[in-house]
Amino acid sequence: MSGDHDGLRLRRTQSVTRAEEIQAEELKVRRSQPDKPCHKPRDSLFSWTSGFDNFTGFINWAFLLLFMGGLRLLLENFIKYGIRVDPIQWVYVLTGQDDSGTEHPSLILLLYSLVPVVLCLLTEKGLSVDIIPNSPGLIIQVINLLVLVMIPIVAIQIKDGFSLIGATTVSFIYCVVFLKLWSYVQVNMWCRTQQRHSKANHSFRRQSLSFSNLGKGDSKNDDHDQHLVQYPDNLNLRDLFYFMLAPTLCYELNFPKTSRIRKRFLLKRIVEVAIGMQLILAVMQQYMVPSVKNSLIPFSNMDITKASERLLKLAIPNHLVWLCFFYITFHSFMNLIGELLHFADRNFYCDWWNSNNIDTFWRTWNMPVHRWAVRHIYLPVVSMGYSRLSASVFVFFISAFFHEYMVSVPLKTFKIWAFMGMMGQIPLSLISKYMETNFGPRMGNVVVWASIIMGQPLCVMMYYHDYVVTHYGKDLLKDYSHV
Amino acid sequence: MSGDHDGLRLRRTQSVTRAEEIQAEELKVRRSQPDKPCHKPRDSLFSWTSGFDNFTGFINWAFLLLFMGGLRLLLENFIKYGIRVDPIQWVYVLTGQDDSGTEHPSLILLLYSLVPVVLCLLTEKGLSVDIIPNSPGLIIQVINLLVLVMIPIVAIQIKDGFSLIGATTVSFIYCVVFLKLWSYVQVNMWCRTQQRHSKANHSFRRQSLSFSNLGKGDSKNDDHDQHLVQYPDNLNLRDLFYFMLAPTLCYELNFPKTSRIRKRFLLKRIVEVAIGMQLILAVMQQYMVPSVKNSLIPFSNMDITKASERLLKLAIPNHLVWLCFFYITFHSFMNLIGELLHFADRNFYCDWWNSNNIDTFWRTWNMPVHRWAVRHIYLPVVSMGYSRLSASVFVFFISAFFHEYMVSVPLKTFKIWAFMGMMGQIPLSLISKYMETNFGPRMGNVVVWASIIMGQPLCVMMYYHDYVVTHYGKDLLKDYSHV
Repeated sequence: MSGDHDGLRLRRTQSVTRAEEIQAEELKVRRSQPDKPCHKPRDSLFSWTSGFDNFTGFINWAFLLLFMGGLRLLLENFIKYGIRVDPIQWVYVLTGQDDSGTEHPSLILLLYSLVPVVLCLLTEKGLSVDIIPNSPGLIIQVINLLVLVMIPIVAIQIKDGFSLIGATTVSFIYCVVFLKLWSYVQVNMWCRTQQRHSKANHSFRRQSLSFSNLGKGDSKNDDHDQHLVQYPDNLNLRDLFYFMLAPTLCYELNFPKTSRIRKRFLLKRIVEVAIGMQLILAVMQQYMVPSVKNSLIPFSNMDITKASERLLKLAIPNHLVWLCFFYITFHSFMNLIGELLHFADRNFYCDWWNSNNIDTFWRTWNMPVHRWAVRHIYLPVVSMGYSRLSASVFVFFISAFFHEYMVSVPLKTFKIWAFMGMMGQIPLSLISKYMETNFGPRMGNVVVWASIIMGQPLCVMMYYHDYVVTHYGKDLLKDYSHV
Repeated sequence: MSGDHDGLRLRRTQSVTRAEEIQAEELKVRRSQPDKPCHKPRDSLFSWTSGFDNFTGFINWAFLLLFMGGLRLLLENFIKYGIRVDPIQWVYVLTGQDDSGTEHPSLILLLYSLVPVVLCLLTEKGLSVDIIPNSPGLIIQVINLLVLVMIPIVAIQIKDGFSLIGATTVSFIYCVVFLKLWSYVQVNMWCRTQQRHSKANHSFRRQSLSFSNLGKGDSKNDDHDQHLVQYPDNLNLRDLFYFMLAPTLCYELNFPKTSRIRKRFLLKRIVEVAIGMQLILAVMQQYMVPSVKNSLIPFSNMDITKASERLLKLAIPNHLVWLCFFYITFHSFMNLIGELLHFADRNFYCDWWNSNNIDTFWRTWNMPVHRWAVRHIYLPVVSMGYSRLSASVFVFFISAFFHEYMVSVPLKTFKIWAFMGMMGQIPLSLISKYMETNFGPRMGNVVVWASIIMGQPLCVMMYYHDYVVTHYGKDLLKDYSHV
């Protein structure tokens, strides 16, 4: 089809050239007339035959219209609801404390997360010096990790006094600790296996050390690789806490380090985090909360038109919050921590905004998780002899579980919308690939964006609806619907 | 500043290259470790130092958000107002007849426009055969044109029974006839002057004819220039009516012609006009009318917040209507007429959407008027010895007058909002040029778009407000404000 198109263009160009010669001759004759002719044969720019294709001005047009639409919604919102931003809420966000509560269950749980971390280190220590045999040691580690992941489920379910944001923070931090300790245990296991292997064959260790010396000699000014830590020298609290704080989920013995902290860079990131979090809180209080509340009845009554309108209304602030969240988490905050810890690998995200299918999006938007999943699930599962597809599916299920975990645990509603949302990525992936193949990469990209923008508010609505139904009963919905 | 930037980039690139060598060496050493290292020093993509600049995905994002925002407004509008599109209105648009009227004053006025056209031809005929001397002849033509332009003002003011759309059509057609006849008279005057000159000096006419013969000999296959019409052979009804119908305001004796009518092209343009007009009517009935009505009170009370919100709300459908109007008028309709009349010059618009300042926009969006203004006002005024600036200002005032004319005459409210709007283009032009120079062409383009999108609804609001105040009195506004 593209070839045909080129052929037509070529023929057209040739005929245009001959026509142009005739025209030029004609124009010369006509120009000599006393009526000052000003017309000549030309096509309109929108006509296919004109060959014109510069519509870049419409890109500015789109962004301007978007900005103006946003501004109008802002004004409309202020006229309708007044100012709802309440900085006092900020205190609760920081402390994770509810209005009514005097205890700090979230803070206590967060502090408690140190226990499984230290337990993990002690077990590794024991394994390294052969106090604990290999198999029982691994079982201890697995139990430790499973208990770790169960703690928030049980604690938040049983104990009252958790604020929603406090409970979310706890679930999130416990997830992160779980993934980090998994990596820590697995890497140490690799090192132990290697060590045993090299004890049998001394040559490898020597080779490794000589490489290290070579690197040192070549780059004298560089103080990073003056000393490469070898297993089991890494098994100490300082190293483990550095890893727990570092903006990565993948443990390794010698992280690449930067030589200095850039003050200006650090300051910019701090300002971004401070302003960005205020912005997110403001947008949530001012836009999302009213939108979500207003959409309760249409969703409950399955009124398609009104529910769609509400969903689209919610989609914009929700998407704004997500974009803002993405930037301050994956750029500002992680770079901030990275700069403070001299952590040199800042590849926290790739260019997911250009991704032409759902798979690429999931591979690029969250690099710490993606790298963890590849290194600690996908590759080990493949090396165990399973197919690449099985490994992918396994990664997918783990990911879906943690998505569900981070939503259901704080909300105390064990619905499966987040899980279903993740599962929905499989047909979506097929659709986006179909669009990419048949309608070009641009359409694939549009499908990816559409799923990001629409998928999240759909999940938010479903969870909110179920949360209200579960905690306040169906009667409330009935009362509302008469208003 | 750009030089500095390049210098920094270069230095950065050099240091990156040296750093990369060290890194590669380091990585080689680290790769040999048993902990399968997966980190390497990298910058985040949003960091300036990463050098990454591919954000094309956000263009799709912007268009998608725009589409979704539009869809939501559509749903909201249907939920709030129901379906307001009324195809019966269509009949009134076509006949220009009001609900109450049984006469067709608009149609009568449109037919009457033939009188000054024929009168103009007769005068030209008289001038060409020296029955009417030159100066009195020109005075007759000027009076004829002035009377022509006064007819709608008087008729619409005195006679009731004009629908708004009927009156608008009449004003528009009379404007077009005025501009066309101005061109007709002036071109014939040029030819007459030339003829007299060549009667004194026979060589010129012969030279001109020989050019014509040369042109004929060179392009045998082309039947366009078999016969170049010479003054005064052009002074006949057939030629004048062709010009009156042709999609141009500039008269010339030999218009460039196409050899055939492209059936498919014609059909497409007809379908576009038919669908486009329905779409405009639907958007006006469904969106603009409620928006304009709702903004009456905030505008009257000078409530800045609410008025801004209303203005932004109105801006979107108004802009949509304008874009649609532009396309069906300047592309579909003019190409349709051009195709039917074998008129070959289809340069009805240039790429105004890419224009980086207001001046370029005015020079490119409406080529028939622009070409007319340059040929029949700007160049003659310059050749009379005035400066280019004076000529521009003169063009500007004529243009502002006709803008005001086409709005005030049908509305019967002689306010000067349209005139002021045109005058406002002068400071706007300075602003857009300032933005273009200081913030790059993109910002200039944004200013142009902003003025297009916001300027029109502002004028619409002002005229509607004054129309209501003039025709229904201030009391109505007071009644409204209690609601």
